[in-house]
Amino acid sequence: MALLYLHHHPDIELVGITTVFGNARIETTTRNALFLKQAWNIEAPVAKGAGVTYDRTRTDREPPTIVHGDNGLGNIELPESIDVPLDARPAHQFLIETIKAHPGEIELVAVGRMTNLALALQEAPEIAGLVKQVVIMGGGITANGNVTPVAEANIHGDPEAADIVMTAPWKVVLIGLDVTARTIMTRSQLADIGKAGGSRAQLVVDVSQYYVDFYETVVPDGMMVHDSCAAAYVTNPEFFTMQSGAIRVVCGGIADGQTIQKADGRGFPPNDWDGYPSQLAAIGIQSEAVLKLIHDVIVQGA
Amino acid sequence: MALLYLHHHPDIELVGITTVFGNARIETTTRNALFLKQAWNIEAPVAKGAGVTYDRTRTDREPPTIVHGDNGLGNIELPESIDVPLDARPAHQFLIETIKAHPGEIELVAVGRMTNLALALQEAPEIAGLVKQVVIMGGGITANGNVTPVAEANIHGDPEAADIVMTAPWKVVLIGLDVTARTIMTRSQLADIGKAGGSRAQLVVDVSQYYVDFYETVVPDGMMVHDSCAAAYVTNPEFFTMQSGAIRVVCGGIADGQTIQKADGRGFPPNDWDGYPSQLAAIGIQSEAVLKLIHDVIVQGA
Repeated sequence: MALLYLHHHPDIELVGITTVFGNARIETTTRNALFLKQAWNIEAPVAKGAGVTYDRTRTDREPPTIVHGDNGLGNIELPESIDVPLDARPAHQFLIETIKAHPGEIELVAVGRMTNLALALQEAPEIAGLVKQVVIMGGGITANGNVTPVAEANIHGDPEAADIVMTAPWKVVLIGLDVTARTIMTRSQLADIGKAGGSRAQLVVDVSQYYVDFYETVVPDGMMVHDSCAAAYVTNPEFFTMQSGAIRVVCGGIADGQTIQKADGRGFPPNDWDGYPSQLAAIGIQSEAVLKLIHDVIVQGA
Repeated sequence: MALLYLHHHPDIELVGITTVFGNARIETTTRNALFLKQAWNIEAPVAKGAGVTYDRTRTDREPPTIVHGDNGLGNIELPESIDVPLDARPAHQFLIETIKAHPGEIELVAVGRMTNLALALQEAPEIAGLVKQVVIMGGGITANGNVTPVAEANIHGDPEAADIVMTAPWKVVLIGLDVTARTIMTRSQLADIGKAGGSRAQLVVDVSQYYVDFYETVVPDGMMVHDSCAAAYVTNPEFFTMQSGAIRVVCGGIADGQTIQKADGRGFPPNDWDGYPSQLAAIGIQSEAVLKLIHDVIVQGA
């Protein structure tokens, strides 16, 4: 849904798609990205990203097939073969070269593990000064977590990478559970997108059915549109209320993967947030406006 | 203030005071407890508690004299010598013996580091089944911290001890920053207690001036009455809104000392809260009612 939003929005030029492990294994998410590139006739290249966490000593986790299905796309039927090419570069290399080719213009929308971004920063720290902004779906400042009482899945899946990304000298925007957990698209709203948006939109609807079924244990009707909130921020930040302050990620222990912001102006003794750049975290959202925006953009591009 | 509240309340029988390091060094807080016992004519014995954290490998911290003064009592003038005796037992031993002597009757009001309680549990785990409840001022579930972005001073001062106390099979009630940070006694309300309550109450007012001055950087007028909220819960739990769920304390890392509750009924993959007892954490308070209660109880006993 977030990908189709960015593909269809008239003000967005989609210049690349990078894959990462997480919702499924890297081979699966990469195959899925190529499938969507083909299905939606997206020109932007797909580059294959990391298959394991930034800190390779972390234990490998089984993908959450209960949320995204065995194939990472809600178990819809997929073609035997896909006839679009994969970019030759690993994702972090693709990121570095693309950012350097368009200084000040690239916005990164990170809706999975932050591993590729951390690897890119490790290899070429200078890219931090060349990126327009990094909009992340992940974490949460005032909200509870969704995989532990305090951690959200995208951050919990690679905390060391996320901490590197949050503390780098570039502009980070965190669109976390504070706002995405209250932005619920109902089954009927989802179906409407399919009806009005043609076959491209219908694919989003088909892929989402498994996810909506999973959400029956969490919300009365529908699903949280986590990633699309981040995409919506890129074009319409006015629908969000932001809080500024350095953000760090807990690495290890029972709070592993928690995002913690020290709000600007709050005084503490010397602490682990000192010296890091202030970033923006969303703490409020006009959910109805964002849901309408997602509908309109996806349908409009049909 | 919390001590005078418990001493004056007609429904409370104060059976013991135990000291602990934290707001000042253990010699200082013990001297101060004896001073208050003498000044207020309290019969209950004072037992000297721990001077260092439960985990002795933790680095010793300087006391926060900026908050409580060099003498731990807001730098009021204290007598050269104090003529009331100290109990011969260390605090954790005093706790064990007192709890065993009154099975099912003792309520522990813990408004400092949890070290004595953890030491008591370590030496005599069976006391957990003999205590009526443990009411703690400390931590926070939905609120920010006061010594780090997520940690409150009493818990941050000895996280390992606090985790032992929260996870023991006894009834814990956490009165944290969620409620105490919004229970502000103004300078004028504080002065009124002194005027109406005589010399005992005036001592509380005198001790609190330094603390109120410290609070000028945090609140417009007055001070948070952290500890007295815990005392008020003992007699009037109806002024609080509680949330039930296992509570654990982060030990180490940037979230060191954070209290995290897994609310009952919230589902997660297997996690570090599984198997621990549900405890109660205050998430709402009728602040005005609690402030009036504190005033009335302290003044009434004069």
